[in-house]
Amino acid sequence: MNAPELGLPMAVPAEGLPARVRIHEVGARDGLQNEKATVPTAVKAEFVRRLAGTGLTTIEATSFVHPTWVPQLADAEDLYPAVSDLPVELPVLVPNERGLDRALALGVRRVAVFASATESFAKANLNRTVDEALAMFEPVVARAKARDVHVRGYLSMCFGDPWQGAVPVGQVVRVCRALLDMGCDELSLGDTIGVATPGHVTALLSALTGADVPVAALAVHFHDTYGQALSNTLAALQQGVATVDASAGGLGGCPYAKSATGNLATEDLVWMLQGLGIDTGVDLGRLVATSVWMAAHLGRPSPSRTVRALSHQES
Amino acid sequence: MNAPELGLPMAVPAEGLPARVRIHEVGARDGLQNEKATVPTAVKAEFVRRLAGTGLTTIEATSFVHPTWVPQLADAEDLYPAVSDLPVELPVLVPNERGLDRALALGVRRVAVFASATESFAKANLNRTVDEALAMFEPVVARAKARDVHVRGYLSMCFGDPWQGAVPVGQVVRVCRALLDMGCDELSLGDTIGVATPGHVTALLSALTGADVPVAALAVHFHDTYGQALSNTLAALQQGVATVDASAGGLGGCPYAKSATGNLATEDLVWMLQGLGIDTGVDLGRLVATSVWMAAHLGRPSPSRTVRALSHQES
Repeated sequence: MNAPELGLPMAVPAEGLPARVRIHEVGARDGLQNEKATVPTAVKAEFVRRLAGTGLTTIEATSFVHPTWVPQLADAEDLYPAVSDLPVELPVLVPNERGLDRALALGVRRVAVFASATESFAKANLNRTVDEALAMFEPVVARAKARDVHVRGYLSMCFGDPWQGAVPVGQVVRVCRALLDMGCDELSLGDTIGVATPGHVTALLSALTGADVPVAALAVHFHDTYGQALSNTLAALQQGVATVDASAGGLGGCPYAKSATGNLATEDLVWMLQGLGIDTGVDLGRLVATSVWMAAHLGRPSPSRTVRALSHQES
Repeated sequence: MNAPELGLPMAVPAEGLPARVRIHEVGARDGLQNEKATVPTAVKAEFVRRLAGTGLTTIEATSFVHPTWVPQLADAEDLYPAVSDLPVELPVLVPNERGLDRALALGVRRVAVFASATESFAKANLNRTVDEALAMFEPVVARAKARDVHVRGYLSMCFGDPWQGAVPVGQVVRVCRALLDMGCDELSLGDTIGVATPGHVTALLSALTGADVPVAALAVHFHDTYGQALSNTLAALQQGVATVDASAGGLGGCPYAKSATGNLATEDLVWMLQGLGIDTGVDLGRLVATSVWMAAHLGRPSPSRTVRALSHQES
């Protein structure tokens, strides 16, 4: 059975949801940086091209982090020029000013910095306090904005943290405000270890809008570690969020979680949005084909349930 | 990382949801009847006992269907007496009057019949039209009610059907009304092939309550074929549904879908409900341990993401 041939899912809109959702595709960066295998540059470029061919409009391409830390993405200088002709947004991660310099030299128009809501993850990931990390990002954001480059601020551990447990909403609001105040155009709220549930999502988004954070500046980034990513996404859509991060085929994951499941699979998201009658511009069949192609390169099946069902891939 | 040790998920209630949800556990019946392996009666009995030990209060035990059709559950006469001392509800499936006779002879207090919302599935599953199947159930329900036995009506293919595609809401409402009118106490709305999305769930539930079906009589039974079960459950909770079917460890699935993923895993559901501060009475750690134990008997890992994450089971 191939459901899309039967015209499924049937589009039945629900009240109070955005008419259109922009998917911020992170498979090529967040996905591949967490895969054990290092993928050849030509395969990565072909992956980004195929993703663009599905109708995705924002495809995070790579990271200009030091190769020692993320050897999987050490080819950023070669990859970016190989895809920069595509008619889509191609944001890249920049950890610091050195990374920004490398990105700007290639003509990048969108960058992202990677902050933490918790001290323990700031220490583990950046070897800094939260405020020291924010101070490090300040000149990155200022210099990007001076060049009219769009800046996204990722915020990790917005719901729970593997060391401290539950993360108070106020702590997240404080760091979000700081990132916006220094000039970030968009914030991506990350549930890095996948522990969020819908009431927690609603509470955080309410607290943020209550602190004058415009919902249009917010994206959500959920992980499927405990299978909660899509219901959390629904809760976020109900609060007006219209930018959702997802990873084609569910590539990648959190290196701190022992489960193989990590990022929300773009296909599972597109299935839900299509069923809700929400426009994404994405061709689900082409997206599934792209993830099956990438899974063959990685030598393991996609963890996306939609990919498995539509491609008859066995688990 | 073991999230519950860190007090996760953090309980953050959301507005407009039930304070308490009754989980109708289907792993021992719907789960095991769709597993390739036939499990020894003693293992099944131990499984039901362990499930009862987790705090689950409604555990569907087996099916009194003819052994030719479901050889996996041919031991119903031996299994039921082996667990009937447990202080929980132990409904059983009865396909017809002969099945009801067998169940009543063992003192069963809850039975379920299995109807279809679509002609194509009624034909494939029961070799009858929808109305012929309803006529077959009528004496089953009447005789059960005359003995004060609780009757659940399962309704398959409430959202999509592998032959006809999308299923019109009105078609489902008509069969639901017929089942209630003949005396069913509860209806379980099945998304047998997993194609539902939240707007469709809301539309069906609104249509049912608009046709004077009390929401207290409704349960939902979602499949995770496309990863949608939990977001559909959230939509149902938002409409006031307070009975949710799930299968420990995600056992079983739809034999018409080629994906390994089928029933919503009880653990993934409990994680969400616990995060929403909704009382289920279930001890998640014990439930995960039970599913890991059962997975060892079946010789394959649980497809539940929560089971994998909490047991450090690899995919």
